[in-house]
Amino acid sequence: MSLDAMGGDFGPSVVVPAALSALAEYNDLHLTLVGRAEALENELSRRRARVSERLVIQPATEVVAMDESPAKALRGKKDSSMRVAIDLVKTGQCDVMVSAGNTGALMATARFVLKTLPGVDRPAIISALPSQRGHTYVLDLGANADCTPEQLYQFAVMGSVMCQAVDHIARPKVGLLNMGVEEIKGVERVKQAARLLQDGAVNYYGFVEGNDIYGGTVDVVVCDGFVGNVALKTSEGLAHMLSEFIRQEYGRNSLTKLAGLISLPVLKALKRRMDPRLYNGASLLGLQGIVIKSHGGADELAFANAIRLGLRAAQMSVPDRIAHLVGSALQARAHGEGQ
Amino acid sequence: MSLDAMGGDFGPSVVVPAALSALAEYNDLHLTLVGRAEALENELSRRRARVSERLVIQPATEVVAMDESPAKALRGKKDSSMRVAIDLVKTGQCDVMVSAGNTGALMATARFVLKTLPGVDRPAIISALPSQRGHTYVLDLGANADCTPEQLYQFAVMGSVMCQAVDHIARPKVGLLNMGVEEIKGVERVKQAARLLQDGAVNYYGFVEGNDIYGGTVDVVVCDGFVGNVALKTSEGLAHMLSEFIRQEYGRNSLTKLAGLISLPVLKALKRRMDPRLYNGASLLGLQGIVIKSHGGADELAFANAIRLGLRAAQMSVPDRIAHLVGSALQARAHGEGQ
Repeated sequence: MSLDAMGGDFGPSVVVPAALSALAEYNDLHLTLVGRAEALENELSRRRARVSERLVIQPATEVVAMDESPAKALRGKKDSSMRVAIDLVKTGQCDVMVSAGNTGALMATARFVLKTLPGVDRPAIISALPSQRGHTYVLDLGANADCTPEQLYQFAVMGSVMCQAVDHIARPKVGLLNMGVEEIKGVERVKQAARLLQDGAVNYYGFVEGNDIYGGTVDVVVCDGFVGNVALKTSEGLAHMLSEFIRQEYGRNSLTKLAGLISLPVLKALKRRMDPRLYNGASLLGLQGIVIKSHGGADELAFANAIRLGLRAAQMSVPDRIAHLVGSALQARAHGEGQ
Repeated sequence: MSLDAMGGDFGPSVVVPAALSALAEYNDLHLTLVGRAEALENELSRRRARVSERLVIQPATEVVAMDESPAKALRGKKDSSMRVAIDLVKTGQCDVMVSAGNTGALMATARFVLKTLPGVDRPAIISALPSQRGHTYVLDLGANADCTPEQLYQFAVMGSVMCQAVDHIARPKVGLLNMGVEEIKGVERVKQAARLLQDGAVNYYGFVEGNDIYGGTVDVVVCDGFVGNVALKTSEGLAHMLSEFIRQEYGRNSLTKLAGLISLPVLKALKRRMDPRLYNGASLLGLQGIVIKSHGGADELAFANAIRLGLRAAQMSVPDRIAHLVGSALQARAHGEGQ
């Protein structure tokens, strides 16, 4: 597995310790830290660690900035830690690449270097969100603003495979995100995607609404990237406001502060349950290779989770499974049309 | 003000007591209960109330079901409580209509009977959502799945007027909801709407993301109905999951139950702050008349809030202000193009 060690808000100071803790957890894990050799060596020695058979350094002289334009990063920085880490997947030296860097640049570079799988038009970003029944996968979370019905169909297949592989659910329920106002039940592209999904390639549940993401109605929720991104960001905003309100209300006076103190175990348990770090790691699905995007602000625990997700995706050969399922869906459709 | 007394999940058993409490609160309020006369009279006498100069009954024999198709309701039920209540606004006998009934049927009927204001293509649904700084208006919440840039522009004007009128903010900040992934900052229609909003008709802030709704970055957030509906429903789902988690964690054992008991004032304060009933009442903006949609499951307190919102909208002549502002924006544009 290759790690873009310079990516994210904190670079090596988060990636290196996360790498060390993942190595301690998984005996058969091999990691390649990609970035400025000196910075990485310093970070390792600061932690009394060093390169080994399972932990190597691959030098890369450049760093993609968090606000750099994807096109500029792709064209202008061919020796960036991000690019070199992806190249290692392309050449087969690594099976997974993890980065906390610039999402747009990561998507553009991964797509350019690795290419999409046969039958997949566009890669999508998928992540699990907590739900009342465990968690729900949602895609696309922002790679593709507008999608065709065919692309939504492909997302459904890819999300289903991801859920099968990572959660070992045989036939994940897949829902299409739609709107609930009766007058105009659904936008046209979503209705058309629903028709395509009647072919049985996935266990298609039907339309779902925003509340079903957290209700756990289905295992996978499919939507275009604009809608998925709004749902994700709106959720982040609401969760942030609520935790702020809880803090304010418990801090109001000495009586409420006492109540807060007594409630500490409960509040901590709640925090654990909602901890975004446990959900860190979005997959770029649909590529010929596994690329995991960590949150830019991830800490050690969160980044280690992204590594863990990459490991599971590799063990279950997610890209091969997607290629297989998309391929057979395309064949079935061609066969159906030929009849 | 006319009330669709048969609408919503509970009909007269909620609408009648809400009407009585609103009448007690506002001395100059006049209400017309529209629905089956006998049911309404029974409900009044059960509460030891009766018709008066300020509370009259307008009989209507039919009721629009919550799951009825809007087209069917519009064509087939010309004596429904919903239709008759809207007709009272059309004829000028009432200045506001409030209904907890079927949203699609309400939108279709209101649009058919009242017509849109000159210069307004489509009405939109607007509601306030709580934010870290008070509240944020969001529109459209589901009346129009896909919108043109011009429609988004009109929503911005309408939302700005609503915020001015109800909250007395002179120049409300208006943001366009967009996505945050760097690669494709924005969908085309949103970018075009942003260009239209450079004309200064409203105090345009720029693009905002989902988290800004609850962050209180702007006073009004504009989006198409599909996106707005997903943001709203996703929020409902997340809030529901969180309150469920809080309930579960405090109910875990006798120690956590004790902590919950001691925290009761805090939890109640939190609940008050987030109480969806206080945010009940969405306005159908852009019509030649004021129509307020209450949540179908609204209780007495919630429905009374929808009445209160209607009263404020009427006092501030929201439709006239929208017509004026949209009209002058159109004129300015025609003038600009003529130069």
